[in-house]
Amino acid sequence: MNEIRQNKATKQWVIYATARGKRPHDFRRQKDESEPLSVFDQGCPFCPGNEGMLPSILIEVPGKKPNLWQARVVPNKFPALTPEGDTSRFTKGIYVGMQGYGKHEVIIETPFHNQQIAQMSPEEVEIIIETYHRRYVDLMKEHKNMMIIIFRNHGLQAGTSLVHPHSQIIVTGMVPNHIRWREEESQRYFDEWGRCVYCDILDFEIRDRKRVVLEDSSFLVFVPYAAEGPFEIWIMPKNHQASFGQISDESKSDLAFGLREILARLHKKLNNPDYNYVINTSPQYKADEPQLHWYLQIRPRLTTQAGFEIGSGISINPSLPETDADFLNKEE
Amino acid sequence: MNEIRQNKATKQWVIYATARGKRPHDFRRQKDESEPLSVFDQGCPFCPGNEGMLPSILIEVPGKKPNLWQARVVPNKFPALTPEGDTSRFTKGIYVGMQGYGKHEVIIETPFHNQQIAQMSPEEVEIIIETYHRRYVDLMKEHKNMMIIIFRNHGLQAGTSLVHPHSQIIVTGMVPNHIRWREEESQRYFDEWGRCVYCDILDFEIRDRKRVVLEDSSFLVFVPYAAEGPFEIWIMPKNHQASFGQISDESKSDLAFGLREILARLHKKLNNPDYNYVINTSPQYKADEPQLHWYLQIRPRLTTQAGFEIGSGISINPSLPETDADFLNKEE
Repeated sequence: MNEIRQNKATKQWVIYATARGKRPHDFRRQKDESEPLSVFDQGCPFCPGNEGMLPSILIEVPGKKPNLWQARVVPNKFPALTPEGDTSRFTKGIYVGMQGYGKHEVIIETPFHNQQIAQMSPEEVEIIIETYHRRYVDLMKEHKNMMIIIFRNHGLQAGTSLVHPHSQIIVTGMVPNHIRWREEESQRYFDEWGRCVYCDILDFEIRDRKRVVLEDSSFLVFVPYAAEGPFEIWIMPKNHQASFGQISDESKSDLAFGLREILARLHKKLNNPDYNYVINTSPQYKADEPQLHWYLQIRPRLTTQAGFEIGSGISINPSLPETDADFLNKEE
Repeated sequence: MNEIRQNKATKQWVIYATARGKRPHDFRRQKDESEPLSVFDQGCPFCPGNEGMLPSILIEVPGKKPNLWQARVVPNKFPALTPEGDTSRFTKGIYVGMQGYGKHEVIIETPFHNQQIAQMSPEEVEIIIETYHRRYVDLMKEHKNMMIIIFRNHGLQAGTSLVHPHSQIIVTGMVPNHIRWREEESQRYFDEWGRCVYCDILDFEIRDRKRVVLEDSSFLVFVPYAAEGPFEIWIMPKNHQASFGQISDESKSDLAFGLREILARLHKKLNNPDYNYVINTSPQYKADEPQLHWYLQIRPRLTTQAGFEIGSGISINPSLPETDADFLNKEE
């Protein structure tokens, strides 16, 4: 019969509907790219030479080749949040709201229109991670900036139609209550056991080894025990660190290596699946908390959240984390 | 500039990205049905005559025509949860899990392969609501059944590929923590004000009238102040009722009328959008609580939840609730 598992950190339940009989290769993407991709697209706002289509350029990271940049940070042309206004609340009748204060930036990861992270050199991926970190640290300096969400959408099902490799940063002027819930649960765990729940998960996964996909001195890469969908992967620093802002230079290089390796395995074994990733980190004012722990979460988009998930918050995952980890580790 | 709103009941924030300039008719579905639909499909397990493709028939509601049923309840052929086992927890190392105890049933809403709710008579829709209620009350009798989620997925984007109109019921042996969060927030509101937060929302919406789509003696139908996506709609009983199990016979008929009317408006004005709906109700043991309130929530699938939503729990809604309500109320 099926199994239900609880996320140790958030207490969210996940149903494993393995009786439906799906196997890892059933999640492989069927579709072939119908149009051949090119290194340059004249309609792409992120390609070199098309700077006129960008609102402005905030940061440009030089590349190895003279006269060619490697990464750029630009404002999002259709921002969800903008820097005008402030973070005070207003009321409308019985309701509470606030102005759309925040920031919304795009990190263009490469000058080449179709170069995926999996195909970059480790040094090129390191530049992306360094750019994340540089913006994170800078944006965190402003008191109004409560939370910084760094994320990447790859493919139509993951919410993007732009092919040119890019990530996004959204700064919010409040702490989302989704993140407050996670904090509260980890606070309860800390009160009960005197330890960070994520540190305990790391210790256990390193010993158990059933869900580990990659390990080096800085990071453990694993499929979490209560993964919400097939091939969900967490890249988590082995040393306790509440905030992504605290990552060391050496760890940045390790994160780049791990991220590239995992995205390459997903690309190869599942035939370029659509995915999102996001860096889950602490709010601005909690960077030194002993009970929070940042990690990068990868979520391939291989299942659809339907009415049951909307109503219950419980995901139905047709694949067991141990099976996913085996499949990702197996030589083909 | 954009606006951010807080759901009064759950405290979840929603960003209104109206600066992106989408108007209600931009959400109209472009695609035409390529294949004409037929009243009978010989490969459909829910069509009359194909009973051999069903595991069994739990309930059959007779229709007006002799020898033809109007609705059926059948077990889901690929259930997420099954009635064997129990609800005790087990541990695996540091983790907590439980057996996949529960039930997963399908309500076949009509014998006709392609008859949408919008096209049924009010009496036919009432039979669906009565069937929901009958199963709800019966399934709630068992002590192990903590939570009953009744939901409907319409269309591929909403997670179903079966055309034949049907809803689903999933019974769980625990209270999802998503629902516990909602309870805790409404409990805090009750402690603070001595009133049900949903009753206060109803009072305000009836006076404010900016987001009301339909009102009768039993129900208010409205776009909530912090709708998470375009054309999200709540159908909420005007009298305080924690559990869907408490609905009166008269109200069932009103709910059928309201649901049919709203689905017909969505169908006509947005060209048959994919959607989910779910009945949000109290857990088994909290049916008499003064601070909980059930409602039917309709969520058209017109936007994609991407990395930001996964990381923050905050939805980006390109359309304001007042605009959506206006569009649904306007004669064309």
